Amino acid sequence: MSTGTVPYRYKDKIIINPLMRGGILREDVKKKICEEGWLDVGYNVCFDCVEGRSSLISKPGIKSFLKEIAHFVGGDDAEHTFGCRAAQFSVMKTVSEFAKEDGRTNIIITDPNSHYSTNIAAEMCGLHAVEPPHTGYPEYMVEADRVLEKIEEVEKESGKPALVVMTHADPYYGNIAPVEEVGKICKEKEIPYMVNAAYTGGVKPIDMKDFNADFLTLSAHKSMASVAPLGFLVTTFVWSKKVFALSRSKAEWTGRVFGKKIPNVFGCSVGGLPLVSAMHSFPAVRARVKNWTDEIKRTEKFIERMEDIGDIMLLGERPHRHHLLHFETPRFWEISKTQKKKGFFLAKEMNKRGIVGLHKGLSKHIKLSVYGLSDEELERVAAAFEEIAKM
Amino acid sequence: MSTGTVPYRYKDKIIINPLMRGGILREDVKKKICEEGWLDVGYNVCFDCVEGRSSLISKPGIKSFLKEIAHFVGGDDAEHTFGCRAAQFSVMKTVSEFAKEDGRTNIIITDPNSHYSTNIAAEMCGLHAVEPPHTGYPEYMVEADRVLEKIEEVEKESGKPALVVMTHADPYYGNIAPVEEVGKICKEKEIPYMVNAAYTGGVKPIDMKDFNADFLTLSAHKSMASVAPLGFLVTTFVWSKKVFALSRSKAEWTGRVFGKKIPNVFGCSVGGLPLVSAMHSFPAVRARVKNWTDEIKRTEKFIERMEDIGDIMLLGERPHRHHLLHFETPRFWEISKTQKKKGFFLAKEMNKRGIVGLHKGLSKHIKLSVYGLSDEELERVAAAFEEIAKM
Repeated sequence: MSTGTVPYRYKDKIIINPLMRGGILREDVKKKICEEGWLDVGYNVCFDCVEGRSSLISKPGIKSFLKEIAHFVGGDDAEHTFGCRAAQFSVMKTVSEFAKEDGRTNIIITDPNSHYSTNIAAEMCGLHAVEPPHTGYPEYMVEADRVLEKIEEVEKESGKPALVVMTHADPYYGNIAPVEEVGKICKEKEIPYMVNAAYTGGVKPIDMKDFNADFLTLSAHKSMASVAPLGFLVTTFVWSKKVFALSRSKAEWTGRVFGKKIPNVFGCSVGGLPLVSAMHSFPAVRARVKNWTDEIKRTEKFIERMEDIGDIMLLGERPHRHHLLHFETPRFWEISKTQKKKGFFLAKEMNKRGIVGLHKGLSKHIKLSVYGLSDEELERVAAAFEEIAKM
Repeated sequence: MSTGTVPYRYKDKIIINPLMRGGILREDVKKKICEEGWLDVGYNVCFDCVEGRSSLISKPGIKSFLKEIAHFVGGDDAEHTFGCRAAQFSVMKTVSEFAKEDGRTNIIITDPNSHYSTNIAAEMCGLHAVEPPHTGYPEYMVEADRVLEKIEEVEKESGKPALVVMTHADPYYGNIAPVEEVGKICKEKEIPYMVNAAYTGGVKPIDMKDFNADFLTLSAHKSMASVAPLGFLVTTFVWSKKVFALSRSKAEWTGRVFGKKIPNVFGCSVGGLPLVSAMHSFPAVRARVKNWTDEIKRTEKFIERMEDIGDIMLLGERPHRHHLLHFETPRFWEISKTQKKKGFFLAKEMNKRGIVGLHKGLSKHIKLSVYGLSDEELERVAAAFEEIAKM
């Protein structure tokens, strides 16, 4: 091991980190990865690469898998990417070029609950992100009317926006954004429209046609039970030609061209083990989205139980439509003052009970998820909070 | 499995693909990954993330590991990236911005044997790649004088180049480029200088100070016995501030800032299992570069043996200083004409003998590597070619 390496410390723990719950690997997939030999070599999907790009490989069937991914979310075409952040970057890069050609501004509109990777992707591409307001405490809702007002403001002051982005379920409150309504607005106004489904695609049924979305970005390690880093960019036939355009550069003296490579995804996005894991997980992922209504019911019950503790309140929309939960927890904050570990006591106490994934140091607010937990595990989590609340 | 998934078909085979030999995982590392639980969840290094960027995590010790990587190749600072291609992109993006500020051209000079990912990274950043000539058949050498001439030509016709890139060992012939001489030229002329060490860093001792390099890019899955996709960008204190500059964007209405994120590496490069594998492999990788002279001697003997077959000749420099071998094989081409499988017969015949990784369909030219093979495996590979040559 290198000096800094520590053994994995979370085996057989109950993970409640909301970023992680959708990315837990199935036992059968881990078994296949370890036993079949997929860990033998870094470039494990390149043995039968003929055309020079991973997304064109048919053994294993990456090409057909990407079609399945596209159809799974109602799109026409998909490429795998280095995480959802790289998918968002590809979109931003494409629309920034399109904006120049089309005389648009370099302004994009994002919802105010966007993941940081959306804002970073914009920054990478020289795009300026502006936001409509949310409804504020305690629900922090994004409303289509506010998005429309923001679009109109930009149009009036600067010109046509380069892109509108909605974060389908946001990473702060787990609110579901009004993606359909905003889609209608964008369609009418002919503004390219991206929905970041990093927290929904793979746990909840999605059809990007319902959203009128031009681009849908997915995170395999967040919501598709896969090894990190892996994402997908799904798009329509119309935008596919632009965002997945092939290389046009020619090396000067040698005259080399790279005609199968897609610059927006670094030529070839390699794939490797993350992609293998996603392919193996996909049938189960496709099946599990059908249980979404049940998952939400169980989550609702868990919310009630948490709030019954007293001095604990869910932030974000009600009824809650996503598994990411953000509680305001003055109860635990009060207790922390009496504890030697101060704010760290809560994660520590949960850890003692075999439950991990709370952000360390926080006790005034906590974010968690019980998505996909068994009844027995869910009971342990609820009971742990109830017990700690009595400290 | 998704419709296209096939089981891994190369377990217990001898892999001779030259892109793969440096990326074979050690048995002990695979065991740790599978047994400790690193495959349990996509975000497996994020449990103890406090600062919001993977490269700042101390449990596991990613931060200290990156320091070790930097020092391993004579650099000051390193970030992990989504493969060497993403590291090259970060460099290109930085120098393209620097070029604008500094009144340079958007022209970069690459060696004529560059990997396609260098050219694609340039294309992504709007940089135009020009090349000095190589020496042509059969050695295809890059010469520092030709690089200097090209620099002078660009300076005369257009202005100061934005960057010079040398591919330390190239992917076509396994030639070692004159990285020290070119480094001297770049230092004198004050041109930013990047060495792509994807095929050397992790198999051969490297000190980027000897090269006078400003940037060194590494591929963990190519040459550091790691799961894909993972690379490293190593740089100097001077360039670190630019290439690893922190985010300066501010989300408009919420006022959110992302001050720990590095836009040039997508904010945070996640890490995940590829990074875990690299950390576990690193002590062995650091040790193995000391055996480079022996590896080259074994490779030399293998070359002799191949050429003794007759009508087979190594292309690229002699004596050969890298494990990537490109043979011209008229002998196999002649045999292929008599075979039902035509050009595919060679890979097929090798496969029958448990040896995999030759590019399918090629028999006129082959690329392979025997790096890291045991004596017994190396013997099997040589004997297989000798046997097939008699068909």
